[in-house]
Amino acid sequence: MTSAPQPILLIKSGGQAALPEWRASFAEFAPQLGLDVREWNDPDVDPQAVEYALVWQPEAGRLARYPNLKAILSSAAGVDHILADAQLPDLPIVRMVTPETQQRMAEFTLMSSLMLLKDMPRIVAQQARSEWTEFSTPRTARETRVGIMGLGALGLACARMHALVGFDTAGWARSPRSEAGLACYAGAAQLPAFLARTDILICLLPETDDTRHIIDAALLAQLPRGAAVINVGRGSHVKSADLLAALDGGHIASAVLDVFDEEPLPPAAPFWRHPRILVTPHAAATPSRRERARQAAVTIAALQQGAPAPHLYDRARGY
Amino acid sequence: MTSAPQPILLIKSGGQAALPEWRASFAEFAPQLGLDVREWNDPDVDPQAVEYALVWQPEAGRLARYPNLKAILSSAAGVDHILADAQLPDLPIVRMVTPETQQRMAEFTLMSSLMLLKDMPRIVAQQARSEWTEFSTPRTARETRVGIMGLGALGLACARMHALVGFDTAGWARSPRSEAGLACYAGAAQLPAFLARTDILICLLPETDDTRHIIDAALLAQLPRGAAVINVGRGSHVKSADLLAALDGGHIASAVLDVFDEEPLPPAAPFWRHPRILVTPHAAATPSRRERARQAAVTIAALQQGAPAPHLYDRARGY
Repeated sequence: MTSAPQPILLIKSGGQAALPEWRASFAEFAPQLGLDVREWNDPDVDPQAVEYALVWQPEAGRLARYPNLKAILSSAAGVDHILADAQLPDLPIVRMVTPETQQRMAEFTLMSSLMLLKDMPRIVAQQARSEWTEFSTPRTARETRVGIMGLGALGLACARMHALVGFDTAGWARSPRSEAGLACYAGAAQLPAFLARTDILICLLPETDDTRHIIDAALLAQLPRGAAVINVGRGSHVKSADLLAALDGGHIASAVLDVFDEEPLPPAAPFWRHPRILVTPHAAATPSRRERARQAAVTIAALQQGAPAPHLYDRARGY
Repeated sequence: MTSAPQPILLIKSGGQAALPEWRASFAEFAPQLGLDVREWNDPDVDPQAVEYALVWQPEAGRLARYPNLKAILSSAAGVDHILADAQLPDLPIVRMVTPETQQRMAEFTLMSSLMLLKDMPRIVAQQARSEWTEFSTPRTARETRVGIMGLGALGLACARMHALVGFDTAGWARSPRSEAGLACYAGAAQLPAFLARTDILICLLPETDDTRHIIDAALLAQLPRGAAVINVGRGSHVKSADLLAALDGGHIASAVLDVFDEEPLPPAAPFWRHPRILVTPHAAATPSRRERARQAAVTIAALQQGAPAPHLYDRARGY
């Protein structure tokens, strides 16, 4: 009698340097699965033994090489970096949504809203010039209307945390939602009303054909004068030239941008030096490696038992 | 029969330019008081008619000139700027604590804690160099211990808001407090235990002889390595050279400083250019003029009726 071969979990995230931490974390969180954790470019991997892949931006065609692959797990938020593969096998794709991801995203967007409420772009610019100019801001959070586009797990976590500290919070999603204590707008028909009542717009939409360049001149013009924008979705949601024009024209007061069409953001990009923009390096919700391993272990354990995995990507909905 | 003379409210805050807004706000919030609102340097003021003064940093000896003065109202947080007057008459002094002040201070300290949790000093420095370097932060708010020194109205508001978003929050005050859901440490005896469990220290103490330079090398050394400091109390609470040494030595990771020994902070001050310090220009909780007028109107109405005014300064306690 021979023991069953260990299922291989192939990881493309953090390279060879990250492998010891991945192995230690899977040993900690899923010892019963007996996973053989291997790095993406390990030459000794038997393609037949690969059952799971935990990946960020896998090369096109690569995932099609594993005949016994059961599921593809994203190693960070979003799955567009996986769907970009034209030869992608028809397998379950699992989004990386951890409890920590929700908490982190809520913390980051709340920090961003407060920074825009307190005009931190001005304060940062003043510090860079060693300039002391006192000023008061006109509103507290209670008089400030936050609008969150995208009411998935992350959007709802952000909405709840904003409401806790007093922001007048609403959300917008493609289809109608009901969420206790949250004003929910839905679909194209209710988008104008949502925008008209939004002082700080937070984009947390998934990346789909419908949402590409959704934040353009026409949308920005529907926000009240002096509104601010936070983009923690994808770079493609914002039409960059339109946002810059709205900032320079004064209709939009300020922005926090965490995601960009091209990452790393090129040094020549005008966002870097704009006095009304805070640029953050895709930092909104990156969970620690240990947190991601814990979530992946939960997912693989469910799939091994034939149970439904949490946070499965739905091709019909597009997220 | 002649009508009683109107009581004069003398204001030193914002100068002549602010007078129309002060007058409009007092007319809105206290029409029944019939206040004659005058600017501090108005040459036509009858000293006998001055009953109330709303001031920021009044010149020494000036308040002693009004024989019928009933109370001195601070136009912003703290009263040390009034107590500095050696010829100060023995009258009730009222601190400026508005509901908005508490909300604003809670928002500002929460923003600051989140900025230090997400390492915004690093992100701001990277943006200044057009540098994209991704990194993840090790903890969420839930794993981060915030410690608030000073549990007056402002400190409690800050503690509550930090707890709402998940920070593990405790407080320290001179005398024992009991506050639902908040771990409270008291006095010199419990200060070491409080510091040992504090990752982010927020100073909201009043300015007294006891609290001057309380944040010195000895105190900072009792915080865990990598802790951060937020000072929104008074500049005198922090011994500047000690904080800079702790930052440069790496024991303290970063700081948000809103108050300084000398304000405006002089251009040559090293704080301005320190890569681990965010300098904000005494911006933490400045209420709008309208908000302050509303609170002063409530106070004056109470005093006129012989009722106790809220937020009276207590000379024995020192705050």
